[in-house]
Amino acid sequence: MGEFELIERFFTRPARHAALGVGDDCALLMPSAGMQMAISTDMLVESRHFLQGADPRLLGHKALAVNLSDLAACGARPLAFTLALALPRADEDWLAAFSAGLFALADRHQCDLIGGDTTAGPLAICITVFGEVPAGRALLRSGARAGDDVYVSGTLGDARLALDALTGRRALGSAALATARARLEQPTPRVALGLALRGVASAAIDVSDGLVGDLGHILAASGVGACIDTSVAIDLLAICEDSAFAAATIDAQIRLDCVLAGGDDYELAFCAAPTARAAVGAAAAQAGTRVTRIGRIEAAPGLRLVDGQGRAVAAPRLRPFDHFAR
Amino acid sequence: MGEFELIERFFTRPARHAALGVGDDCALLMPSAGMQMAISTDMLVESRHFLQGADPRLLGHKALAVNLSDLAACGARPLAFTLALALPRADEDWLAAFSAGLFALADRHQCDLIGGDTTAGPLAICITVFGEVPAGRALLRSGARAGDDVYVSGTLGDARLALDALTGRRALGSAALATARARLEQPTPRVALGLALRGVASAAIDVSDGLVGDLGHILAASGVGACIDTSVAIDLLAICEDSAFAAATIDAQIRLDCVLAGGDDYELAFCAAPTARAAVGAAAAQAGTRVTRIGRIEAAPGLRLVDGQGRAVAAPRLRPFDHFAR
Repeated sequence: MGEFELIERFFTRPARHAALGVGDDCALLMPSAGMQMAISTDMLVESRHFLQGADPRLLGHKALAVNLSDLAACGARPLAFTLALALPRADEDWLAAFSAGLFALADRHQCDLIGGDTTAGPLAICITVFGEVPAGRALLRSGARAGDDVYVSGTLGDARLALDALTGRRALGSAALATARARLEQPTPRVALGLALRGVASAAIDVSDGLVGDLGHILAASGVGACIDTSVAIDLLAICEDSAFAAATIDAQIRLDCVLAGGDDYELAFCAAPTARAAVGAAAAQAGTRVTRIGRIEAAPGLRLVDGQGRAVAAPRLRPFDHFAR
Repeated sequence: MGEFELIERFFTRPARHAALGVGDDCALLMPSAGMQMAISTDMLVESRHFLQGADPRLLGHKALAVNLSDLAACGARPLAFTLALALPRADEDWLAAFSAGLFALADRHQCDLIGGDTTAGPLAICITVFGEVPAGRALLRSGARAGDDVYVSGTLGDARLALDALTGRRALGSAALATARARLEQPTPRVALGLALRGVASAAIDVSDGLVGDLGHILAASGVGACIDTSVAIDLLAICEDSAFAAATIDAQIRLDCVLAGGDDYELAFCAAPTARAAVGAAAAQAGTRVTRIGRIEAAPGLRLVDGQGRAVAAPRLRPFDHFAR
């Protein structure tokens, strides 16, 4: 199978949002009148972002999910994406499973594959995603104000717990592992929530490197600080919702570390004025996504972690993920 | 140096065309009224698209050039690009040189870096480029008609000759190597020519895999065939223009092979009606780029190669580049 047959067989589908899709030098895309294009790109590399031998169907899902998560954080509606793929060899079974996982998620969001590139090389997946948002209405990192509430969507920390279990660094019961592993391998981009939060949230970011690190980007961009109630945060793990899971089997500090700094969550962290609490609740209900209020924005810079009584809590021992940290 | 410092130091510059550049979850870009966005993506992988130890400044240039070449082939004006970069380690000297080469070419085309991703991993560079073109006026592969002339811009074949010389598969004099090597390492995307050919050319493609293969895409998309005069094509090498170069030192068949199927040229192959010859000449003059008429589109499918007397010439022995050909 050559390069062109590979593209034809696995990656050529009719474009719905684009004037021109796969098959020319460029794709042609035109946002609706008054819309800005929101653009984000993410590259996933074997042994860094996923384990060697990872299920290609799950990989196809995740490669697009992490990009859609960036659109969600901006409140943009997905339109289309490009895919650049470096593969050690053109393995038909791998390609069939990868493209099935990719297109299943793409179809759910009516997001068209409009172009790409394939090459031989160490396995790497680079997706660039395009969404649209009414001009001036994108959710940004820079809009948080002192007094705003701080929220997160869904659950946090399971992906890190699953990764540690899969790599033998931590023991985890099989039921808990199954729950946590689904969060690692099949994250759900919060697209509907991002759309519903337009005009409601003051600032938003997607949690990819860990809550403390990513919330720190909002604080820096907005010139504010925050206080987070760890007594609420500690129960944000998906496994804590599972009746079969006994929280006591995992040290509280480890649970908190995973929630605050685990990374790979692809939830939204966002801020909104206290007067918008009902609107936040309505947005969450409309999107069918749980949101939890975990703290408050403050004027003083820095992130403070407190327990249920307001006493200071130590920073997580996990550092935010950094590809080049020494 | 961590990931965020790396981005801040080497890849954060003010955006001119974008409402929002590097530093949020998404970049925001809005094409002018009535414009379509032309989008293309290319991934360059070490040992596949460039030799190990390649000069990072030249690599920065080439990674963007091959993408701008796709915009040129569509007649789109460059606006912006995203960069996803996998690096074995955060080497400051490498990054300084790479970004200098990248931005030198980006500035020449007023093309803004608006977002990206960096990760540790085997060296790979994925750029997605955005241009704009008036709706419905993009140059496509599908517009060639029987009777049209076939043209190529600039020179062809030197990149392959240089690659073969640098990898020890062919001997080349030092003056010829210097000329050919510049074509391999610093291709010039024909952006101005692509813009000038809007409304003049009937079809266009950029020559990346080799003239015969890429022209074949135009023929297939347009449902036509073509006849190419190899007696003209054989002199299209840049080294043939060099007075210090004695053509006799390289076998004629090898020269022709490199021109017809060498690849990595990043010139434009395009078609235009015979009535548009003056307009093609004017477009070439306006762009300051030489164009050469090398053949004609015919109704009968397939590509025919002929000599100066119209006699059939054998197909090049080099096959079009295919990453997954067995």
